[in-house]
Amino acid sequence: MKPIFILNGPNLNRLGTREPHIYGTVTLAEIELSCREAAAGHPVVFRQSNSEEWLIEWVQEAIDDAAGIIINPAAFSFTSMALLDALKMFPGPITELHISNLYRREAIYHRSYVSMVATSVMAGFGPGGYALAVTDMVRRVGC
Amino acid sequence: MKPIFILNGPNLNRLGTREPHIYGTVTLAEIELSCREAAAGHPVVFRQSNSEEWLIEWVQEAIDDAAGIIINPAAFSFTSMALLDALKMFPGPITELHISNLYRREAIYHRSYVSMVATSVMAGFGPGGYALAVTDMVRRVGC
Amino acid sequence: MKPIFILNGPNLNRLGTREPHIYGTVTLAEIELSCREAAAGHPVVFRQSNSEEWLIEWVQEAIDDAAGIIINPAAFSFTSMALLDALKMFPGPITELHISNLYRREAIYHRSYVSMVATSVMAGFGPGGYALAVTDMVRRVGC
Amino acid sequence: MKPIFILNGPNLNRLGTREPHIYGTVTLAEIELSCREAAAGHPVVFRQSNSEEWLIEWVQEAIDDAAGIIINPAAFSFTSMALLDALKMFPGPITELHISNLYRREAIYHRSYVSMVATSVMAGFGPGGYALAVTDMVRRVGC
Amino acid sequence: MKPIFILNGPNLNRLGTREPHIYGTVTLAEIELSCREAAAGHPVVFRQSNSEEWLIEWVQEAIDDAAGIIINPAAFSFTSMALLDALKMFPGPITELHISNLYRREAIYHRSYVSMVATSVMAGFGPGGYALAVTDMVRRVGC
Amino acid sequence: MKPIFILNGPNLNRLGTREPHIYGTVTLAEIELSCREAAAGHPVVFRQSNSEEWLIEWVQEAIDDAAGIIINPAAFSFTSMALLDALKMFPGPITELHISNLYRREAIYHRSYVSMVATSVMAGFGPGGYALAVTDMVRRVGC
Amino acid sequence: MKPIFILNGPNLNRLGTREPHIYGTVTLAEIELSCREAAAGHPVVFRQSNSEEWLIEWVQEAIDDAAGIIINPAAFSFTSMALLDALKMFPGPITELHISNLYRREAIYHRSYVSMVATSVMAGFGPGGYALAVTDMVRRVGC
Amino acid sequence: MKPIFILNGPNLNRLGTREPHIYGTVTLAEIELSCREAAAGHPVVFRQSNSEEWLIEWVQEAIDDAAGIIINPAAFSFTSMALLDALKMFPGPITELHISNLYRREAIYHRSYVSMVATSVMAGFGPGGYALAVTDMVRRVGC
Amino acid sequence: MKPIFILNGPNLNRLGTREPHIYGTVTLAEIELSCREAAAGHPVVFRQSNSEEWLIEWVQEAIDDAAGIIINPAAFSFTSMALLDALKMFPGPITELHISNLYRREAIYHRSYVSMVATSVMAGFGPGGYALAVTDMVRRVGC
Amino acid sequence: MKPIFILNGPNLNRLGTREPHIYGTVTLAEIELSCREAAAGHPVVFRQSNSEEWLIEWVQEAIDDAAGIIINPAAFSFTSMALLDALKMFPGPITELHISNLYRREAIYHRSYVSMVATSVMAGFGPGGYALAVTDMVRRVGC
Amino acid sequence: MKPIFILNGPNLNRLGTREPHIYGTVTLAEIELSCREAAAGHPVVFRQSNSEEWLIEWVQEAIDDAAGIIINPAAFSFTSMALLDALKMFPGPITELHISNLYRREAIYHRSYVSMVATSVMAGFGPGGYALAVTDMVRRVGC
Amino acid sequence: MKPIFILNGPNLNRLGTREPHIYGTVTLAEIELSCREAAAGHPVVFRQSNSEEWLIEWVQEAIDDAAGIIINPAAFSFTSMALLDALKMFPGPITELHISNLYRREAIYHRSYVSMVATSVMAGFGPGGYALAVTDMVRRVGC
Repeated sequence: MKPIFILNGPNLNRLGTREPHIYGTVTLAEIELSCREAAAGHPVVFRQSNSEEWLIEWVQEAIDDAAGIIINPAAFSFTSMALLDALKMFPGPITELHISNLYRREAIYHRSYVSMVATSVMAGFGPGGYALAVTDMVRRVGC
Repeated sequence: MKPIFILNGPNLNRLGTREPHIYGTVTLAEIELSCREAAAGHPVVFRQSNSEEWLIEWVQEAIDDAAGIIINPAAFSFTSMALLDALKMFPGPITELHISNLYRREAIYHRSYVSMVATSVMAGFGPGGYALAVTDMVRRVGC
Repeated sequence: MKPIFILNGPNLNRLGTREPHIYGTVTLAEIELSCREAAAGHPVVFRQSNSEEWLIEWVQEAIDDAAGIIINPAAFSFTSMALLDALKMFPGPITELHISNLYRREAIYHRSYVSMVATSVMAGFGPGGYALAVTDMVRRVGC
Repeated sequence: MKPIFILNGPNLNRLGTREPHIYGTVTLAEIELSCREAAAGHPVVFRQSNSEEWLIEWVQEAIDDAAGIIINPAAFSFTSMALLDALKMFPGPITELHISNLYRREAIYHRSYVSMVATSVMAGFGPGGYALAVTDMVRRVGC
Repeated sequence: MKPIFILNGPNLNRLGTREPHIYGTVTLAEIELSCREAAAGHPVVFRQSNSEEWLIEWVQEAIDDAAGIIINPAAFSFTSMALLDALKMFPGPITELHISNLYRREAIYHRSYVSMVATSVMAGFGPGGYALAVTDMVRRVGC
Repeated sequence: MKPIFILNGPNLNRLGTREPHIYGTVTLAEIELSCREAAAGHPVVFRQSNSEEWLIEWVQEAIDDAAGIIINPAAFSFTSMALLDALKMFPGPITELHISNLYRREAIYHRSYVSMVATSVMAGFGPGGYALAVTDMVRRVGC
Repeated sequence: MKPIFILNGPNLNRLGTREPHIYGTVTLAEIELSCREAAAGHPVVFRQSNSEEWLIEWVQEAIDDAAGIIINPAAFSFTSMALLDALKMFPGPITELHISNLYRREAIYHRSYVSMVATSVMAGFGPGGYALAVTDMVRRVGC
Repeated sequence: MKPIFILNGPNLNRLGTREPHIYGTVTLAEIELSCREAAAGHPVVFRQSNSEEWLIEWVQEAIDDAAGIIINPAAFSFTSMALLDALKMFPGPITELHISNLYRREAIYHRSYVSMVATSVMAGFGPGGYALAVTDMVRRVGC
Repeated sequence: MKPIFILNGPNLNRLGTREPHIYGTVTLAEIELSCREAAAGHPVVFRQSNSEEWLIEWVQEAIDDAAGIIINPAAFSFTSMALLDALKMFPGPITELHISNLYRREAIYHRSYVSMVATSVMAGFGPGGYALAVTDMVRRVGC
Repeated sequence: MKPIFILNGPNLNRLGTREPHIYGTVTLAEIELSCREAAAGHPVVFRQSNSEEWLIEWVQEAIDDAAGIIINPAAFSFTSMALLDALKMFPGPITELHISNLYRREAIYHRSYVSMVATSVMAGFGPGGYALAVTDMVRRVGC
Repeated sequence: MKPIFILNGPNLNRLGTREPHIYGTVTLAEIELSCREAAAGHPVVFRQSNSEEWLIEWVQEAIDDAAGIIINPAAFSFTSMALLDALKMFPGPITELHISNLYRREAIYHRSYVSMVATSVMAGFGPGGYALAVTDMVRRVGC
Repeated sequence: MKPIFILNGPNLNRLGTREPHIYGTVTLAEIELSCREAAAGHPVVFRQSNSEEWLIEWVQEAIDDAAGIIINPAAFSFTSMALLDALKMFPGPITELHISNLYRREAIYHRSYVSMVATSVMAGFGPGGYALAVTDMVRRVGC
């Protein structure tokens, strides 16, 4: 049973203290817990990096090893065509997740490269969105 | 306990036969069933219309009567500022839902007026997205 | 003596409770009263609808029956070319009225189709703007 | 033998009196006659509405019942993505017709949503264009 | 009782002879009279200049001395951000007035800097618009 | 009785073998036959060139000699302002014809210079569109 | 015999020392001489100002007193709609003159408001262009 | 003494009958005469073509044989980068000439490729502009 | 030893009371003092005007008389190409200064003409920025 | 064994003398030699024209007779959709070649129509690029 | 006493040899010295990296440890929204510094993401700008 | 004899399995072999990285150590101005190489920052393009 990769982009390591009026006070560690709980036994790989390179490498690793990808690319959504190119190679389902509803923010946050290749997109469900995304992904790829 | 309003826009009455390569073969009646199931007893009002007027009226009705709105505005997402104005008056949470990932389609499907006021947005989860949205909404507004 | 038509577009039936920090707390019924008062005996037809179709029909009715039109097209200002086409057929004076100064709002509220055909435009005079518009219209068309 | 649907959008009920320097003095009733004559016995359904909803419903009805659609969407050409979505479901030939050559008018009349899905487009043939379109459609779908 | 400042921008000194098919044949002196009459005793300061500098100075003077400003900035509407900056400092109500409906003119007349800060905007009411604006302003600031 | 000029632009000499999934397998010679048939005796001048110069010359010739012009400018529609300028001098009716519905193709095929001066435009009627255009033109200019 | 007004905009008082690689070393006084010579007895009013206001006033003066205007608006070409509005009132011929070919410079120098109303435009003829313009203007307005 | 080349683009062979409200009734032959007169003995080569190819060839010929070029590129101004490239090779002065003031016409006539390389540009001087341009060119290149 | 010119544009005479949440409460007189102090004996010419003309004249004066220019053009930054043209003639260093960080404000405050010619630009240093700029300028031009 | 067509667009006949700082001093005849040498016996057809028509005709000829096309469309790259349409019909490999790196030049040289249909594109390799392109083409189509 | 962080982006390690006509010949090590001198005892952390990741990490480190940030983001100014997001979390003053005046360079260097969140921006002061920025920062945060 | 640097950007380590319908099935190791073969003894440094930082460092290393650079920047072409800035410092020839013809792909792949500084650009030659580029580079820099 291949795991689900949950990949988190730059500055999400500061979750809980970062602009809490936008992102809430839940930490990434607490989110990881909620994901494992929602996965209900399905293996989960949960990672964060501020490096575009590492995210690309992890997506490449996922091509061989993962059943599905849930990715919160944060700012890389809008600037990294290399991440888009990496995700294009992934044969399974991809869910792009944003904690806040970025379509209500400034125009620079409206057009995500990742959305061009993602199977599904969700935004504005808060930290609770991760569990929703995992539940859905397990249903799609789980046995 | 105020109900959740689930409102569906134009052409969704044809779901199941409409461009099935994009929208799948599940019908709106089946989706309504999945929503009631996911609501787990929380009252649900489920409606569809091809009329912008009716959708506006229903949103106005929801201001007084609903705990939350899940809306799939279909094509009105991109053309109805009147629907946007109506939704602005709603004090509770609003989830905008699209069956397909519209960000992968032509540019005219990229900028939704409704997203400017929605609390949360989800797209590309297929017909199963409705149940996810209901589960999440019940958690937010349910007792 | 042909009446003045005063036509109101979508969501104006909620005036008084709709975003009162923008539109104030005066209701549409109170505005109607102020219009009749300002008309000083000149007949007035005062209507509201959330339906683009009805507004078009009323403008067509006005072609035969009205001396002038005062119209607050609300969101239809920005999306309804059908309303624009209907107003083009009206031979008398047309005043477009907006309660708030839409030119101070987001860009989507800046370009009104109706302004392309209106004789006069006024915005930001609050609910009191209706009486001003009626006073002016009576002067133009009144005997 | 399935009929040809001839659908007419907003303000076309005023044809003959509406901006006659652009649209001529022929009425819609006279056009209907010319269509039946050109159809030479092939059944024709001829309708007009100022309501986007009704046009959508008629297109949906055509999916089951019509051999071909000739549509003059008038202003909805430029604003109704819901009509575009409905027409996408129609499996037969679609002819989009405009009485005047809209490409000579202001820029807002240049980009029709309906043209994105129509089989054929004609503009500027005056009221006589309807008979041409019917002749052509009968040839395509007729026995 | 602080006066109302009525400020007029470039070329309005030629009113009555300037493009009369657009602006009519009423002169600025006649308009001043109509304003004083409409003010019904409320003091009025009525000025015109072709100089951006003078208009800025008068707006600065108004900050200390005026209850409200009615301004017809003419061409400076579209080119003077310095006038916009001056008006931003004024704490009272500002009415922007244009004799013709500029939204029906060429695109360069559509976006007014002054509209970004004005309380109210009116256009296309002809020379009679001044009296309307004064009536309204007296109601707002008058005792 | 002045003839109708039917002018064809670049690459149309390859019709029948050129991208048949777009343009069909009918040749230009066959289209010429269908035009003469549809003209029912009205004289027809039918020409093709890959040279912008020759098309301009033929349009100038038509000013003196032709009753009407049917032109399929092909790629010159989008790049030749000289052809536009030549057509502006023609006093009679001009029908612009495209075999495919160019409004469904890439954006570079959307804006035709020729449409700015054509009386009528038709696109997407296939090779059969020529006969339709001739029928219509004979009706307009024929005795 | 009404004079020709030759009006010069901001910074032209520095001609001869101002960016001589673009504007040459001829001074404005020398240009004035060349104009009087070219006028061959026709009266000439030759002025320069760095003030938009003065240029507007001189154009207004010209409406009553001048047979024609030759204007080098310099930077005001691109920023002064008030000058455009003033020139619109002038009933005679207007020649806009630029010493350098501004169409070869940066994009901000490409779109002149004055060109929208000028009868004739010339650019890039160097200081000698003034004499050419005067010769031409005398031919048009001279007795 | 090398001649001045005066080159004329497409449709100028129709001058005198082409849109006379814009271009006047003077013919190209009369213009040629006025040029020779203005040249005052300086040799002049005067040509016209509707072919982009011939204009390019003539410009290449001018590189070896001409002292200066006066070119009225007509519609090729806006579409022919090949003409621009040819003119770039010419070492002498180039005057671009337009009979009408194209900056007052539609936007498609505003940006000339030829202006990017011309020494001087003149527009709106009518047929008389040719003589002005020749006078100026003789002064520049004449002995 | 030539002085440093410190030039201030429109509305800066109101500093201290003008939108203090943006510009602070320090007055222009106090800023002048801080400049003289920072200049440490180097002569300083400190001026303010609401007139574009005066600023142009002072820049022209500086060409002959000043060692360097520090200019806060305020709103003229964005609208005055004449000021840009004047500054282009200045051979010494130019520092453009804005009290607030205009790049965080609305888009109309982002593109300064003056920045195209300034040697250095500083924004958002508050009133204290003047002293910094003077310190730096003295270092550059001071003996 | 079908030949390789090497087609050269406008102004390339002047190579060697045309803007040598951009294009070098090698002539087209020398380039033809280098191509034949690189072809190593594979037949080569080498042509140049300043006429869009002839280039279209040659591409049409190539459809029947050539194994591959190497084309340097020069300025027609950016303006000739007719050349694009002709090349679309060619079933074999197409290499687009530019002597200079056009992506470093002005924006008008950035978007080539030919690139939309070419198999390969090369720019900036100087005259030596022709031999590279031939070597590559022979490898692809050669026996 | 918390230190001031001075962070330098990609390619600044080559300062002194990198495009010296733009950036001068001072090295980054010399700049570091000038900063420590200007800090006058206030602790300074001075770093450079070509890695976006490291700059993000250092900004995150600064949130806990620094009193103020001076950042020269170099090319990341224009491409790194992740850096923008990191800086948004910093509660203290941020000075963005560029050695050259980027507003005079090509358009791609005009819009900095960092400027959207910086307190102050300075550009074009050369290597000496660092000392100015430190002096100012110490004044703001220093004891 | 300084080596040629051949640098490969993100995701090219997956070549052979990555979207083979676009990039083919040749691996990067096979390409490296083909490069060494084409270099015919000239030393070659061949590297790949998913990290923008490493590519920048390698370009900086090349400044001191390499005779020429061949770079396939992959997605960084479109997003990395830091790479552009690094390449600007390189004094020798730079060839930008893309395996597919990116000008035929979506618009986001059309504008490469690297092309602004590259000496030569090639795209669409498949994996064989590397050998072509090396052959050409050896010719330029080889002894």
